[in-house]
Amino acid sequence: MTKAALITPVILSGGSGTRLWPMSRPEMPKQMLALTGDQTMLQMTALRTADTEAFAAPLVIANAQHADLIQQQLDDVGIRPAAIVLEPMGRNTAPAIALAAIAAGGGDAMLLVMPSDHVIADVSAFHAAIAAARPMVEQGWLVTFGIQPDAPETGYGWIKVGDRMADGVHRVDRFVEKPPLDKAEAMLASGDHAWNGGIFLFRADAYLAALDQFAPAMRSAAAEAIELARHDGIAIHADADAFARSPSDSIDYAVMERADRVAVVPVSMGWSDVGSWDALHAISASDAAGNAHKGDVIAIDTERCLVQTDGARIAMVGVEDLIVVASGKDVLILPRGRSQEVKRLIEAMKKGD
Amino acid sequence: MTKAALITPVILSGGSGTRLWPMSRPEMPKQMLALTGDQTMLQMTALRTADTEAFAAPLVIANAQHADLIQQQLDDVGIRPAAIVLEPMGRNTAPAIALAAIAAGGGDAMLLVMPSDHVIADVSAFHAAIAAARPMVEQGWLVTFGIQPDAPETGYGWIKVGDRMADGVHRVDRFVEKPPLDKAEAMLASGDHAWNGGIFLFRADAYLAALDQFAPAMRSAAAEAIELARHDGIAIHADADAFARSPSDSIDYAVMERADRVAVVPVSMGWSDVGSWDALHAISASDAAGNAHKGDVIAIDTERCLVQTDGARIAMVGVEDLIVVASGKDVLILPRGRSQEVKRLIEAMKKGD
Repeated sequence: MTKAALITPVILSGGSGTRLWPMSRPEMPKQMLALTGDQTMLQMTALRTADTEAFAAPLVIANAQHADLIQQQLDDVGIRPAAIVLEPMGRNTAPAIALAAIAAGGGDAMLLVMPSDHVIADVSAFHAAIAAARPMVEQGWLVTFGIQPDAPETGYGWIKVGDRMADGVHRVDRFVEKPPLDKAEAMLASGDHAWNGGIFLFRADAYLAALDQFAPAMRSAAAEAIELARHDGIAIHADADAFARSPSDSIDYAVMERADRVAVVPVSMGWSDVGSWDALHAISASDAAGNAHKGDVIAIDTERCLVQTDGARIAMVGVEDLIVVASGKDVLILPRGRSQEVKRLIEAMKKGD
Repeated sequence: MTKAALITPVILSGGSGTRLWPMSRPEMPKQMLALTGDQTMLQMTALRTADTEAFAAPLVIANAQHADLIQQQLDDVGIRPAAIVLEPMGRNTAPAIALAAIAAGGGDAMLLVMPSDHVIADVSAFHAAIAAARPMVEQGWLVTFGIQPDAPETGYGWIKVGDRMADGVHRVDRFVEKPPLDKAEAMLASGDHAWNGGIFLFRADAYLAALDQFAPAMRSAAAEAIELARHDGIAIHADADAFARSPSDSIDYAVMERADRVAVVPVSMGWSDVGSWDALHAISASDAAGNAHKGDVIAIDTERCLVQTDGARIAMVGVEDLIVVASGKDVLILPRGRSQEVKRLIEAMKKGD
């Protein structure tokens, strides 16, 4: 029996992470933080594909600013990446993944593309979904993982799950980007829609071929950026002039919504993108009163609160349904359910500067 | 016309000030803080009796720990005390005032005893009340000022105002310490009760004579503590061994509630003891939404909140009826109306240490 080819994890560590301000900041984005446990989300992402029987060493695509921190965090959990490809500027996910596909050699290597700042509670379900996707991927299909939805989310992309192609694998009938609430509610009720979780599995050559067809300028810019890259240990500094010429686009818009051979593997795996403090509260272990506290917190008669602090001592009494986050010299306070409004505060602070 | 004798202000700077934690702390109690404006409450207290036509230089009675800070704060507003009498330990108000009466010479000098951490918005009304009290004080009466009540406070001492003796001056019919709520409500409704504000006017010799009668051990301990005191500039360090022998008691229990010639001058002067964050909120200038913020605060859609910070930046959105106080590395959060519960937090933190 020949041993099955290993899958190469591609970990995307982009994003400025303002939604979890003040813990996440440009210099310390969400994936670098241990918000849900002792490990950072980057570390948990890498450890999900640490089984060397199934996975090769990962490729990490990141902002050059974070190179040292990423290497340190992965080293701390015994992960040695094959390479860390450093983007001189952000160009969204499609060019970032192009860098990875080219750095991986551009051949038939299977790439498992994963954002570094998502939570997956049921890793076994994730591995099973990968196994289900694999045969179609080997045949050149582009596979996305469709998250079983449990709320009418208007901020996500949705997928209408089409005809069954193989065990656990379906054609994508349609992508629906960020729907209005009534449409999201209808999709949730339909039972045949899933969230687009931003996790993909495909062969490097299949992805690059799709780019050739739908975004050739992106492909050539990424190829030149790798060709002219500066190497420093495992770090690959993509060439800035070349990469700057790439159009900026998401993999969804540039490739997945256009290509023909696109499949979806629906999966229920305790996924969360931890896209807000409310989302973190929802997935955090809570006490009997619904509180999820982390750090130096004294709370009396407090219910359904999320309090996180990395330095300040938070003392509260008689408080309900409040989110409090203290980091450095900043303290964020807002009621549960309003954590999307962090961006209003950040805008107000920018104006005040 | 002979010039009237000057009144000597006696400023009591005691108290550990835990009720306004985390701004007030043992090393920086409430009276040292500028909670209501640009001046500290100690400074405002001293400036209320700065008119040299009516008042002599003040005597300050304080914890030895605060000597330098008090002198600095008074110097900053141009007040030079006659002396700062430093207590080696706290023995409550009656012995503290005994030290002042003896340090003032023990003769017929009139002493205006004032806590250093009260707010009086209408200083003219205060001065008028002092003028009304003066003739009876010169005759040896002990006068307390009775604050016009506007709430059924259960934490205060109350006074039943008795028969009129002179313009604005009444006999004290009865003292009522910290009544239950129904009794407080009845006293409020009666119209003939006042709060005991802790502000007194009497001759030094009258006070000491009352001590001789009701608390002779206190009188002798205070006399010896001053006799053996160490002098350092304007600072008088009361002798620790002698003062330690004094019983500990309040002026109300030790003297006012026992003496015969006790009068009350009812006065409405915008008084507050600022005994809680709610009390501070009530007397603070608020914006149209009822917010009273001080320090680095960004507040969006926020109503009826009190936010004070001396360092941390507080960013809040969608919050109502909340008290937030950040000082040093501590952040206090509680709903309006529950600020008496700060002491529960302080107890919990002590246990945690």
